[in-house]
Amino acid sequence: MTQLETRIRNAALRDRVVSADAAARLIHDGMVVGMSGFTRAGEAKAVPMALAERAKTDPLKITLMTGASLGNDLDKTLAEAHVLSRRIPFMSDPALRRAINAGEVMYVDQHLSETVEMLRTRQIPGVDVAVIEAVAITETGGIVPTTSVGNSASFALLADKVIVEINLNQPAELEGLHDIFIPTYRPNRMPIPVVSPESRVGLPFIPVPPEKIAAIVITEKLDSSSTILDPDDETRAIAGHLTDFFLNEVRQGRLDNSLAPLQAGIGTIANAVLHGLIDSPFHDLKMYSEVLQDSTFDLMAAGKMSFASGSSITLSAAKYAEVLPRLAEFKPKLILRPQEISNHPEVVRRLGLICINTALEFDIYGNVNSTHVMGTQMMNGIGGSGDFARNAYLSVFVTKSIAKGGAISSVVPMVSHVDHTEHDVDILVTEQGLADLRGLAPRERAKVILANCVHPDWCPALADYLARAEARGGHTPHLLEEALSWHVRLRDTGKMA
Amino acid sequence: MTQLETRIRNAALRDRVVSADAAARLIHDGMVVGMSGFTRAGEAKAVPMALAERAKTDPLKITLMTGASLGNDLDKTLAEAHVLSRRIPFMSDPALRRAINAGEVMYVDQHLSETVEMLRTRQIPGVDVAVIEAVAITETGGIVPTTSVGNSASFALLADKVIVEINLNQPAELEGLHDIFIPTYRPNRMPIPVVSPESRVGLPFIPVPPEKIAAIVITEKLDSSSTILDPDDETRAIAGHLTDFFLNEVRQGRLDNSLAPLQAGIGTIANAVLHGLIDSPFHDLKMYSEVLQDSTFDLMAAGKMSFASGSSITLSAAKYAEVLPRLAEFKPKLILRPQEISNHPEVVRRLGLICINTALEFDIYGNVNSTHVMGTQMMNGIGGSGDFARNAYLSVFVTKSIAKGGAISSVVPMVSHVDHTEHDVDILVTEQGLADLRGLAPRERAKVILANCVHPDWCPALADYLARAEARGGHTPHLLEEALSWHVRLRDTGKMA
Repeated sequence: MTQLETRIRNAALRDRVVSADAAARLIHDGMVVGMSGFTRAGEAKAVPMALAERAKTDPLKITLMTGASLGNDLDKTLAEAHVLSRRIPFMSDPALRRAINAGEVMYVDQHLSETVEMLRTRQIPGVDVAVIEAVAITETGGIVPTTSVGNSASFALLADKVIVEINLNQPAELEGLHDIFIPTYRPNRMPIPVVSPESRVGLPFIPVPPEKIAAIVITEKLDSSSTILDPDDETRAIAGHLTDFFLNEVRQGRLDNSLAPLQAGIGTIANAVLHGLIDSPFHDLKMYSEVLQDSTFDLMAAGKMSFASGSSITLSAAKYAEVLPRLAEFKPKLILRPQEISNHPEVVRRLGLICINTALEFDIYGNVNSTHVMGTQMMNGIGGSGDFARNAYLSVFVTKSIAKGGAISSVVPMVSHVDHTEHDVDILVTEQGLADLRGLAPRERAKVILANCVHPDWCPALADYLARAEARGGHTPHLLEEALSWHVRLRDTGKMA
Repeated sequence: MTQLETRIRNAALRDRVVSADAAARLIHDGMVVGMSGFTRAGEAKAVPMALAERAKTDPLKITLMTGASLGNDLDKTLAEAHVLSRRIPFMSDPALRRAINAGEVMYVDQHLSETVEMLRTRQIPGVDVAVIEAVAITETGGIVPTTSVGNSASFALLADKVIVEINLNQPAELEGLHDIFIPTYRPNRMPIPVVSPESRVGLPFIPVPPEKIAAIVITEKLDSSSTILDPDDETRAIAGHLTDFFLNEVRQGRLDNSLAPLQAGIGTIANAVLHGLIDSPFHDLKMYSEVLQDSTFDLMAAGKMSFASGSSITLSAAKYAEVLPRLAEFKPKLILRPQEISNHPEVVRRLGLICINTALEFDIYGNVNSTHVMGTQMMNGIGGSGDFARNAYLSVFVTKSIAKGGAISSVVPMVSHVDHTEHDVDILVTEQGLADLRGLAPRERAKVILANCVHPDWCPALADYLARAEARGGHTPHLLEEALSWHVRLRDTGKMA
């Protein structure tokens, strides 16, 4: 068999191979397009580039839905080509961010488990064309995704037409890694049968009727590697505080040495925290998360982690070079699921996850801002953090206590935007220490946070705010006229105080 | 059989009948006490009164956990007797509210589905003594609750000792109404098998080992009736807007004429909204809610509602007089569940509920404050609204557009406290109109909210704020130095502007 025959096993579909330009012509102005891609992994690569190129002479605007953020500068390219009128449900590109904050692109920042739920109930406009990167199409027309599942399965099932990008450089060994399960539609939904990170409950491909596959494009471009930074003193300190906390939980008999299935948000700090578990006494760790980063494979290589379920694999260049050749070895320990399932409240609550996500800032009462710089400027989006934090066994948020060389305290009197309320935050950690908020009232939380998480430079000002607020009274004491003044000063002077 | 024999069918337990004073002596200073009671229904009545009485001469402090708020002024009596050091997870009494806002009682305001989850994983201190109102104790020692289940089942199962209050005036016909299901403990939890409001998956009693029942007290006091007000012009208008919206959803093919299972928060407005469905073309309505109020029985009597699942029944005096004698007739259409199950994210998401909850205020971007007056003073608590809104098929929040004779706009530039983020709010309704926020970015939401929900007196000021904020830019434009100024003015002058 030729390589094309092994990658497109349904013979009748082989004559649908066209150029990216030709495939992109299936997309018209005003359409809703659902593309594969979740945190720089497994995104459709050729068709969006062709669309941006075409827009130079033939302007068009689309609503773009994906799993999450895209690699290969695609969000940047599409934003700069003015192709995007609306973007759903997550992004992290600086150029697109500028367009969103300027009000040029309408950004619908959603809990990542919810997009396809709203699509299938037609509460948001339906997908006209789906564009899905695949390693192969099966004999029956099933689409085998690459390094992410994201929303690809539901996009393909719900779209009028599907464009498949067969990526010859994505390893064929990815086939068998995916577990495509679509919940039965309400009102007749049955329980989702996932009862452990290892549960396989679906198909290894997206079961699309072959006649819906309108075009196939052959590509070779690789995923972008992740941009996470190496652990530093502060992230190591955060990891240390959290490890100490877990050790105490084990001593108290609330956890055993395999802890509970772990979720960790994307990014440097969460990756560093997981990395820190390599030197811990914990073992047989499991993940039930959305993105599997370098730390997952480091923990497996160290013999600390026995299984990981996610919706995508996003690695640094060095880690890709290490993992991809050994994929067959890792495969029995991995599952990639639709993000609706990796993040599903039902499953998150059932499995009892320890969820570690990153805060931009948090306040003295434990409310967390994950998304908005100074309450107004979108950073990336809430992503899956809300799916996980609300339903976690333990909801942990981590951040460094200061930013911009000390001009910013990450602990503030009142957060300028709330993504996670006081009800959804159990543990806060900075390099200064860890605050355990479980079972505490707001005034008690403030004391624990001030005693443990705040940078010494900012302690006096926060303590002063709290004392004056408490003197005024209330369940959650605040001086409303000052509550956001730290952000106002930062905006006006470049420093919070 | 004597009445006592029919109510305490396990003969060996009959000699544990003692006075309320004697039973209350099982409770010591510093203990955690878990009592039955959910929104004025089915609370333990005699033992807490005895405890308050005893505290006059023998001061003691306890942590009191319940299902939700208590009737018969128990929270008031306990607060005024200074018996409460800590109160979990919901209350609505003015005297207790004052003590909480003064910082005298530590109030841990929780999502109502989560309290027992934290208890059984020992993340909050365990229950020493449970006090449960019951209509009967079965032959095997099973406790049959009265008009609420709340957290009673887990309190009784987890406590060291159980006190049962057999209430002779709670109708024996309540037996058979309850469905006591406790999820298997993590990490081996199986799916919760509830797949429709009608699903019966548990036992009709709380299966407690008889030796744990340390005392039985005989009582006769009735539940307090609810304090909801009759529909008025504004609540009728809110109901009308929502009915029109549902009619359009049916026309669009997104719902059929039986809508989806309904949840409605406690209180006058939500009750009025449900009441408004009596005059609608909808039929075969079902509820999957926490509190079943007058409107549930009015809809059943009108032939509009075929089934209702909840965690308690809380009625006005008139409705009690009507419903209790006809309990046998209503019983096949009712189930009362533990609040962990009535509010469980897994079940809420699976069933695809339409959730209608009350906002204190909301902002121009759709964030909702349900709990804190002026960001500081606790009103009641978040209750189940977060369990429902996050996982709803349609998350609706309702409120009147103004309060205090027009001094307060319920729509503000920025809410002074966030309980429900923009991500969890689909529909906002005031008597002015309805804003459908589904699939909209923040700037779009602001336009829809201003056009539909705001009282005309407050429109110019909000439009001015929005215009000046948009000129500054951002995904969620705000003027941080002014964002809370409406609340500050209200505090200082008694009027928001």
